[in-house]
Amino acid sequence: MHYQNNISFFAFLAVVLMMIVFPSHAQKQPLIIEEQGSFMVGGEIVKASGTFDPINHGYFNPSNQASEGQTLHGDHAYVFYQIPQDKRKLPLIFWHGYGQSAKTWETTPDGREGFQNIFLRKQFPVYLIDQPRRGKAGRSTEPTTITAKPDDQLWFGIFRLGIDNEFFKGSQFPQDSLALNHFYRQITPDTGPLDIEVNINAVTALFDKIGAGILVTHSHSGGQGWLTALQNDNIKGIVSYEPGSNFVFPENEIPDPISYVGGKLSARGVPMSDFKKLTQIPIIIYYGDYIPTEPVKYPGQEQWRAALAMAKTWSNAVNKHGGDVTLIYLPDIGIKGNSHFPMSDLNNEKIAELMFNWLQEKGLD
Amino acid sequence: MHYQNNISFFAFLAVVLMMIVFPSHAQKQPLIIEEQGSFMVGGEIVKASGTFDPINHGYFNPSNQASEGQTLHGDHAYVFYQIPQDKRKLPLIFWHGYGQSAKTWETTPDGREGFQNIFLRKQFPVYLIDQPRRGKAGRSTEPTTITAKPDDQLWFGIFRLGIDNEFFKGSQFPQDSLALNHFYRQITPDTGPLDIEVNINAVTALFDKIGAGILVTHSHSGGQGWLTALQNDNIKGIVSYEPGSNFVFPENEIPDPISYVGGKLSARGVPMSDFKKLTQIPIIIYYGDYIPTEPVKYPGQEQWRAALAMAKTWSNAVNKHGGDVTLIYLPDIGIKGNSHFPMSDLNNEKIAELMFNWLQEKGLD
Repeated sequence: MHYQNNISFFAFLAVVLMMIVFPSHAQKQPLIIEEQGSFMVGGEIVKASGTFDPINHGYFNPSNQASEGQTLHGDHAYVFYQIPQDKRKLPLIFWHGYGQSAKTWETTPDGREGFQNIFLRKQFPVYLIDQPRRGKAGRSTEPTTITAKPDDQLWFGIFRLGIDNEFFKGSQFPQDSLALNHFYRQITPDTGPLDIEVNINAVTALFDKIGAGILVTHSHSGGQGWLTALQNDNIKGIVSYEPGSNFVFPENEIPDPISYVGGKLSARGVPMSDFKKLTQIPIIIYYGDYIPTEPVKYPGQEQWRAALAMAKTWSNAVNKHGGDVTLIYLPDIGIKGNSHFPMSDLNNEKIAELMFNWLQEKGLD
Repeated sequence: MHYQNNISFFAFLAVVLMMIVFPSHAQKQPLIIEEQGSFMVGGEIVKASGTFDPINHGYFNPSNQASEGQTLHGDHAYVFYQIPQDKRKLPLIFWHGYGQSAKTWETTPDGREGFQNIFLRKQFPVYLIDQPRRGKAGRSTEPTTITAKPDDQLWFGIFRLGIDNEFFKGSQFPQDSLALNHFYRQITPDTGPLDIEVNINAVTALFDKIGAGILVTHSHSGGQGWLTALQNDNIKGIVSYEPGSNFVFPENEIPDPISYVGGKLSARGVPMSDFKKLTQIPIIIYYGDYIPTEPVKYPGQEQWRAALAMAKTWSNAVNKHGGDVTLIYLPDIGIKGNSHFPMSDLNNEKIAELMFNWLQEKGLD
């Protein structure tokens, strides 16, 4: 017994020493993962007419690349999941935006932990999606051409890092020399025509497979998220970062389109019985900074002026019909400088904490 | 003290109960991950001539999608890594083959653990690559067209699952109804022209970044692996599953090409001083089953007859010059039924054990 007491004493000493050596929060604990893996979900199978010839199929003859009788499996989503020890009941399902893959939620462009690790540490099972025709879910049933046209500066504007090549003053985007280089490399093209029905079907198949969960969307997946929730009751709540389009209204309450420099944002109408489904789950929407309330000359900012205005109208509509939507423009609560990617900006731990608090408040933890 | 003894007794009881309830090996222990994350590495930056106009950049005008003055970051690799607790010194760097992504090394088509988890459990740091212009590393500096032509049955043959749609007798490929569907969905297209120099540069940049490690290749990455080792001393050993092409010989010892139904496999020549680098590290090559020694009529099998024959010639050449290459045709050591994907066949735990034993034998653990 004396021996056991000695062990306890040394264990205590070790803890005290660690508290002295490592300042609080600096030392990350290991992640304890009960289970991890990846799978494809949803998708279609197409078959070419004719009969496959396993000898003369023409593969090695470029002038005769016959598909006769062959199948093609495509249009699925790819999902990587991790289930931590002592897991919470509801998993978080992270869905990236336009031109992105699940990388959005992983390590930040400057090498800090992203939402994947942050929420694993908060003991949520985490599912990361590459939507159909993107990333590791590259196999499409429809052909496409990838142009490789230089457009980084276009995205610098649309992703609200700044204007031209100049960061906005006070931006929370990490501005060391390598972060922007890395951020541009997160962009990954569509490997087939962008088709939101295809995407929604695959994410619906995912929720059919895994059961109840919380959907976390970003940008272009925001509107697709509302549409997915219309057809899948396993979505028990939605956290939406900067939804950009496809806001869904009752078909007789569709608001006027919002014009902005470079385009026009229209709403979608659905039958009231469908719309009402969006009133049955708690929803929170966050937008970052640098979104003007009046028209400006830069299209990158302009489309978010339209999106935020539409999101306000939409939140009011859902809440009027008995829903529970919270819309937060981060500067309104004193959080300034966020880009279109709050989940990887310098203050992403704070952004995650806001989300976590909301999940707790709504009993979704 | 009595209390502590009780705890010990119940802990003992719990262990005994678990041993009764779960047959050995069935109960997986949690993975304890010290650190995990993802990054892009290597790549190029191209810039269009002219000056970027942040207002009238033409994005919203399809007839005027100007690139003037914009950059494009592409041709990098994407890497997801996990470092387990009590890690071994040398990490394993897994590089997929043609038409594949890092998914090759993850969960198997029938949902079992792949080499990613198997080797994390053996306490190796694990790095999984999506090579440039593939998967999450989709951004290419060169354009391409993706045809979406049905060709599953072509790959069924080349990946040596069987012929036409019939599995080989005794195949270790999981033949439940969902596995093949899932396997076909692992295929993912090139998002730019396939360029082995681009790939080799990115993987070289990865080894420059992470330091010493063991490269594990599959199929098309096999030959690229030899070429990468020529230019990076951080590769301390290579495990190559079914290398298919780009075998590297001294320029005055290049063997004759090997003709097969559907094509011709040629060797590559390099200066002797480069070739000698391949004699400085231990290398092991594994091939699965169903590779004929004499010509057959099926091109899917034929190209592996040529590859295995070339691999034998190559192994002898490297060893003659003082190298340490082991070549294993799995049926020769009594392991039968493997496809072109031994790392995800039904016996993949045994395949992993072979690799692990070799790493130990060579002091690479």
